[in-house]
Amino acid sequence: MSSSSSSPRLPEIRKDYVFNRYVIISPARSRRPSDFKSSPNPNPKSPNPNSCPFCSGRESECAPEIFRFPKEPPSSSSSSEWNLRVIENLYPALKRDAEPSGSDPGVADGGGVLPGFGFHDVVIETPEHGVRMSDMSAEGLGQVVEAYRERILQLKRVRSVKYVQVFKNHGVSAGASMAHSHSQIMGLPIIPPTVSIRLDSMKEFYGRTGKCGLCEAWSKDILIDESAHFFSIVPFAASFPFEIWIVPRDHSSFFHDINKEKAVDFGGLLKMMLLKLSKQLNDPPFNFMIHTAPFELPNDHLPYTHWFLQIIPQLGVVGGFEMASGCYINPVFPDDAAKVLSEVNLS
Amino acid sequence: MSSSSSSPRLPEIRKDYVFNRYVIISPARSRRPSDFKSSPNPNPKSPNPNSCPFCSGRESECAPEIFRFPKEPPSSSSSSEWNLRVIENLYPALKRDAEPSGSDPGVADGGGVLPGFGFHDVVIETPEHGVRMSDMSAEGLGQVVEAYRERILQLKRVRSVKYVQVFKNHGVSAGASMAHSHSQIMGLPIIPPTVSIRLDSMKEFYGRTGKCGLCEAWSKDILIDESAHFFSIVPFAASFPFEIWIVPRDHSSFFHDINKEKAVDFGGLLKMMLLKLSKQLNDPPFNFMIHTAPFELPNDHLPYTHWFLQIIPQLGVVGGFEMASGCYINPVFPDDAAKVLSEVNLS
Ligand SMILES: Nc1ncnc2c1ncn2[C@@H]1O[C@H](COP(=O)(O)OP(=O)(O)O[C@H]2O[C@H](CO)[C@@H](O)[C@H](O)[C@H]2O)[C@@H](O)[C@H]1O
Ligand SMILES: Nc1ncnc2c1ncn2[C@@H]1O[C@H](COP(=O)(O)OP(=O)(O)O[C@H]2O[C@H](CO)[C@@H](O)[C@H](O)[C@H]2O)[C@@H](O)[C@H]1O
Repeated sequence: MSSSSSSPRLPEIRKDYVFNRYVIISPARSRRPSDFKSSPNPNPKSPNPNSCPFCSGRESECAPEIFRFPKEPPSSSSSSEWNLRVIENLYPALKRDAEPSGSDPGVADGGGVLPGFGFHDVVIETPEHGVRMSDMSAEGLGQVVEAYRERILQLKRVRSVKYVQVFKNHGVSAGASMAHSHSQIMGLPIIPPTVSIRLDSMKEFYGRTGKCGLCEAWSKDILIDESAHFFSIVPFAASFPFEIWIVPRDHSSFFHDINKEKAVDFGGLLKMMLLKLSKQLNDPPFNFMIHTAPFELPNDHLPYTHWFLQIIPQLGVVGGFEMASGCYINPVFPDDAAKVLSEVNLS
Repeated sequence: MSSSSSSPRLPEIRKDYVFNRYVIISPARSRRPSDFKSSPNPNPKSPNPNSCPFCSGRESECAPEIFRFPKEPPSSSSSSEWNLRVIENLYPALKRDAEPSGSDPGVADGGGVLPGFGFHDVVIETPEHGVRMSDMSAEGLGQVVEAYRERILQLKRVRSVKYVQVFKNHGVSAGASMAHSHSQIMGLPIIPPTVSIRLDSMKEFYGRTGKCGLCEAWSKDILIDESAHFFSIVPFAASFPFEIWIVPRDHSSFFHDINKEKAVDFGGLLKMMLLKLSKQLNDPPFNFMIHTAPFELPNDHLPYTHWFLQIIPQLGVVGGFEMASGCYINPVFPDDAAKVLSEVNLS
């Protein structure tokens, strides 16, 4: 590590203007950035490949299919010929048949309770059990992105769905209960807390600077890589060591406005980031999540909402300080992490 | 479990008016409330009792002492006669010698960077290695509470310290790196994100209802236990299964206004809650944190700020959905958890 000298850098408190939170960057709490490795952190042990319901050939053991790629007439949708499937979650956190009637089902003010209506789907990213997302081609990842997009557009047609959260858990300590590569899509009747905070914070930044906080996020110091339409950085006020954001170059509020060409371009950069994390940090458990805009975004919010994907490798444990304060202690300076990741040799 | 019949209750989305967040209560995601057990989750293996710097007799292996109970003249403060010690953290996240000069050191707007100034202390709660907090007497816990109070009052005198976060990590998966019973105190030059959100949310609730949200939190349905000056509940919109709040009966903004009698009363209820969690959930890892008010609280905020202690047993893993949305999926209805906990037999 070029930037690690004998004495570590002094700690800093940085403000994240996207999520409106502070982070403490404190290298004294940890090893040198280049020494970070995840402890061997395997995938969930069950189900094994011989009984995994997400494997091709076991479609009947899954909750109902929503669609598959390549598209097939419904008659043949029970076949085992597919690259990707979007299915209902067998143990959904929210129920899709509980849509509230009435004109404004979203207001929990007053009593503080809403019925648990919503959609909870699973994207099976590959028919093969042992294939990780980083093993897939850019086109394969592009297809996953297109599946997200298509499902979001379907959910957009449901009146009560206000926001869609796409996320992936990889590895036990990132929450994964299934080893077979998959991600999840939740259609929510509320705008989640983090999303409201983000929109308010981006608005405040725009009001103060006249600029979109994400358009401004590009900086040589924290840049990892770039593609035709996207760039990847370790954000200036990253809450987690080796946290990565993949950001569209051109200002764009809605993830679901991505087109086929951009989806493949995005897939290529995502694959590269996952490979770099895997190589540098010893196949760490990770989460990724897409941060987009609520469906009913007033037009005057468009200039300061900008979607992006956040990847968080799980390298430590969250303690009481973070849970209490919402302020994370990150032991690795973002520019140090970006330098390490930009230099990972994938050949 | 009386309330668990053959079919689980339907999911609900609940609004937490204290932290301004939604939670999804979704029993279908899990076992019956009474079946919850933490997987055997021991304390950190190192250091062992023969090399633990927090044990009495090894004071010299610790960072400098700030004070101890019982109070002693400085000349004898290197002795091994003590019940409790407050010491500096050997690997502090923030530096106590970096106080910024200038009149308003707290504003990170603009550049988005503040020097990493602050205090990071450790409370060694007992001289004995194997004693857990729940093994200690109400008076012993009262002494821990008084140590928090005394240290907070010291930090209040430092101009740049705006908020003090007290927290405890117990067990590896709650973040503890030291097995010997301890907690931590951080004096911060910022008001952390969760605190700002909480104050705004309590203000909004007060504006709408004319009441303090915590004074209103008492409810028979979610009550666990009560003492002379405090009550303990599973909050109506708990984010975590078996989450507990201990709340002062009388409206009180600042934890550091607690007196000796109340400290022992509080210690007794805290001990009981930790024992109940330990017995019911198999000595789970947990965090607790004190949520109080910033030092420079304008007088008109007093009616709606109300301190409390939050205990979160770590029974599951946080996944991408929670990290992305700030919305937690809690598989146990708060009233079911409260009923289980109220009925735990400690004799
Ligand atoms: N000889 C000595 N003298 C003085 N102090 C000593 C010491 N030896 C060790 N210490 C300090 O004692 C503290 C023990 O704290 P904990 O075990 O509660 O968790 P830790 O702070 O390591 O991290 C957990 O809590 C923090 C804050 O929530 C999270 O950031 C982190 O991820 C999580 O693992 C450490 O902070 C350590 O620096
Ligand atoms: N045969 C089948 N057909 C259809 N679906 C099936 C199925 N068998 C299993 N499933 C579903 O597949 C999903 C797999 O998801 P993950 O492994 O990413 O994590 P999970 O949702 O279990 O929980 C993690 O993510 C959530 C959300 O972040 C956290 O609440 C939680 O604590 C964390 O462990 C599960 O939701 C499961 O219900």
